[in-house]
Amino acid sequence: MTRPTPLSGFPEWLPGQRIIEAQLVDRLRGTFELHGFAPLTTRAVEPMEQLLRKGETSKEVYVLRRLQADAEDATDSGLGLHFDLTVPFARYVVENAGKLQFPFRRYQIQPAWRGERPQEGRYREFLQADIDVVDRDELPLHHDVEVVLAAADALSRLPIPPVRIRTNNRKICEGFYRGLGIADPAAALRAVDKLDKIGREAVAKLLVETAGASDAQADACLALGEINSEDVSFVDRVRELKVDDPLLDEGLAELVAVVEAASEHTPGVVVADLSIARGLDYYTGTVYEIALPGFGMSIGAGGRYDNLASAGADRYPGVGISIGVTRLLGVLFGRDALSVSRPVPTCVLVALPAESSRPAADRIATALRRRGIATEVSPDAAKFGKQIRYAQRRGVPYVWFPGEGGDEVKDIRSGEQVAADAATWTPPAADLAPAITTQA
Amino acid sequence: MTRPTPLSGFPEWLPGQRIIEAQLVDRLRGTFELHGFAPLTTRAVEPMEQLLRKGETSKEVYVLRRLQADAEDATDSGLGLHFDLTVPFARYVVENAGKLQFPFRRYQIQPAWRGERPQEGRYREFLQADIDVVDRDELPLHHDVEVVLAAADALSRLPIPPVRIRTNNRKICEGFYRGLGIADPAAALRAVDKLDKIGREAVAKLLVETAGASDAQADACLALGEINSEDVSFVDRVRELKVDDPLLDEGLAELVAVVEAASEHTPGVVVADLSIARGLDYYTGTVYEIALPGFGMSIGAGGRYDNLASAGADRYPGVGISIGVTRLLGVLFGRDALSVSRPVPTCVLVALPAESSRPAADRIATALRRRGIATEVSPDAAKFGKQIRYAQRRGVPYVWFPGEGGDEVKDIRSGEQVAADAATWTPPAADLAPAITTQA
Repeated sequence: MTRPTPLSGFPEWLPGQRIIEAQLVDRLRGTFELHGFAPLTTRAVEPMEQLLRKGETSKEVYVLRRLQADAEDATDSGLGLHFDLTVPFARYVVENAGKLQFPFRRYQIQPAWRGERPQEGRYREFLQADIDVVDRDELPLHHDVEVVLAAADALSRLPIPPVRIRTNNRKICEGFYRGLGIADPAAALRAVDKLDKIGREAVAKLLVETAGASDAQADACLALGEINSEDVSFVDRVRELKVDDPLLDEGLAELVAVVEAASEHTPGVVVADLSIARGLDYYTGTVYEIALPGFGMSIGAGGRYDNLASAGADRYPGVGISIGVTRLLGVLFGRDALSVSRPVPTCVLVALPAESSRPAADRIATALRRRGIATEVSPDAAKFGKQIRYAQRRGVPYVWFPGEGGDEVKDIRSGEQVAADAATWTPPAADLAPAITTQA
Repeated sequence: MTRPTPLSGFPEWLPGQRIIEAQLVDRLRGTFELHGFAPLTTRAVEPMEQLLRKGETSKEVYVLRRLQADAEDATDSGLGLHFDLTVPFARYVVENAGKLQFPFRRYQIQPAWRGERPQEGRYREFLQADIDVVDRDELPLHHDVEVVLAAADALSRLPIPPVRIRTNNRKICEGFYRGLGIADPAAALRAVDKLDKIGREAVAKLLVETAGASDAQADACLALGEINSEDVSFVDRVRELKVDDPLLDEGLAELVAVVEAASEHTPGVVVADLSIARGLDYYTGTVYEIALPGFGMSIGAGGRYDNLASAGADRYPGVGISIGVTRLLGVLFGRDALSVSRPVPTCVLVALPAESSRPAADRIATALRRRGIATEVSPDAAKFGKQIRYAQRRGVPYVWFPGEGGDEVKDIRSGEQVAADAATWTPPAADLAPAITTQA
């Protein structure tokens, strides 16, 4: 073959980077399970009618076709790759409702695909880590706290810079716009959602043009979006804007409950930020956005969706958060902010005095592995210096020398070499697995 | 939405089954890493020209198309989903050769997709667990032993019935057919590979019709395929057939080396079986097939491929084994051979005396989680009997009762209830995670 080149938008990691990714994912899984979330995976494909229910993202879907599809078998027509994990999860819950225990808590860590134009932080294939809680009929507000605390806990256990989870409530925006007398509150939400992208001036113009707002109403919308606080003081600042609406009151009460409960467990992590709109999605109450301050980038988002999943008279309201693993790693790798002590799991290389001693070396390796020590046998019986360099190039910390009078093991970083028995020798715990270092 | 129904060929597990799958995959990963294999993932898509190099499977490829692809952006044209993990791995090695250390050992656990007609053990989406070793220019034979021992070790640590890994060498078949004077040895290989499917008579007929064999030659081919042994006695039985060929000698020597080394480490697991042909693939030497005796099904396969990956003058010979995780689980779930103690990770449910005590209950949960005990807080402050039944339905073993005079914890299986402190109480290790039971 000619030497292949990377595909834009489909990132692949080198072995050391992949070890970092695997460790991060394992820590996320561990924390999610500590919070009682069960692992779940769904198939990669969904019928197109499921994928197109959300509208806006439809243009980004990858559609499948069998290369040699025949007329008699049309079962694959109309399948596409999922573009997030929320839509498949909602479908799974409705499909399996009779076999699930509600409230149903699950985490799901899988790739998703979007045919978007690739750019920094945007991929065509990317790994997502989602947690959600879904109940039947009603889902109490304390679950909105539960998912954000589980996500904050999981992120705090990763070797990454501290995150900030900005929280708002869609009812605050919608109630405020309605109380203000804006003709089209939904259009106002979509306009304000563009604040980060197009700036104040342009949003004000959009509010006037698309939402039917007066200049004064547009100013009030922008003033609401500027409110944020680490505690519940945002309520007083909203009240100062003198807008009255029952939905606004409901939204404020809900956001107070989330911020109060979260600030006790994770002070300074979960903050109220009334600029977060997430206008184009299926959210109906609390919304979250996970920021990586200093990197100017959102690495996750989520919220409450009361109407995503239903079948007949059955309704399954949910709330969840999605962490963009590929996006997070992409930005950290791009700034050399993470490194790993070695790109292989191997802790010990058993050296070979001669090719004929391979069976004996294999027995040593078996004894070490049995006690949880990752071990390779040298690929050849080259001079010991060359075998040591083989270990060095991979960052393998120990080389084992079989000997007729007894074995020895060398720490090739310090050069220290001691007598050792494969049935009892144990390296320091820190050397057992590759260790991640954070430079950021 | 109307209640969705499953898609044939795209299996999805219920939460308890998914916990079993996750534990099996974690054990495979753990063993592969003990043997020095590094984790790797590749993107799900490959250019069609990579996917079509193998020929035979081309008709099973799923091709991608962006729903709203436009003329100016043709970057997605010609992408398909990978149908195995070997082809993408070979492509990855050639693409990144300058950044890898050889010999390069990796494991890869990802879904693959084939548009085949679904049937028992055949899926359109399925999880594979692969290990491979690739080197530059030459790959010594001891790696053929290394991968089969790592796979046997990994499978022996799973809660599944014992497997048998049947091994052969393509050089034995090709050399034997050549030594026998058969006109088209490749056609003979393809014919013999159908033995399990179409039986002796039909294969004999095929040998005569497609490979140009005489009746006597066809009989000899079938006699070779009937040879198998747990030790190296297969050599004498081949010699009794009185065929002479240097390639046959080479193949016999290689298979002896693999079976001898494997039988020391895993007696009775790796056996010689000269009926294994794997005729339609890219294998050039050792071939493996993993059988689950008593289930009449192959759950994995692999072999040596000396010519799969190359670029210009660089050649990257490899050897590997692939375990069909979905296939294995599908057959075991289908016979109710595996069960799990609970479909949730949760070990402790903290009961709520009143909704107002949720913050205190959250603090107890945090203290337990900090010490690695998976904990949920009750979704509501119903009567304790109802909260206990919530735990029972999920198989959660412990319910925690916060009390003003001190907390208590109840093992709801035995009914035993004791005073407990969230800072120190620890359940038996066996209760920490869901436990798998094997009925087979």
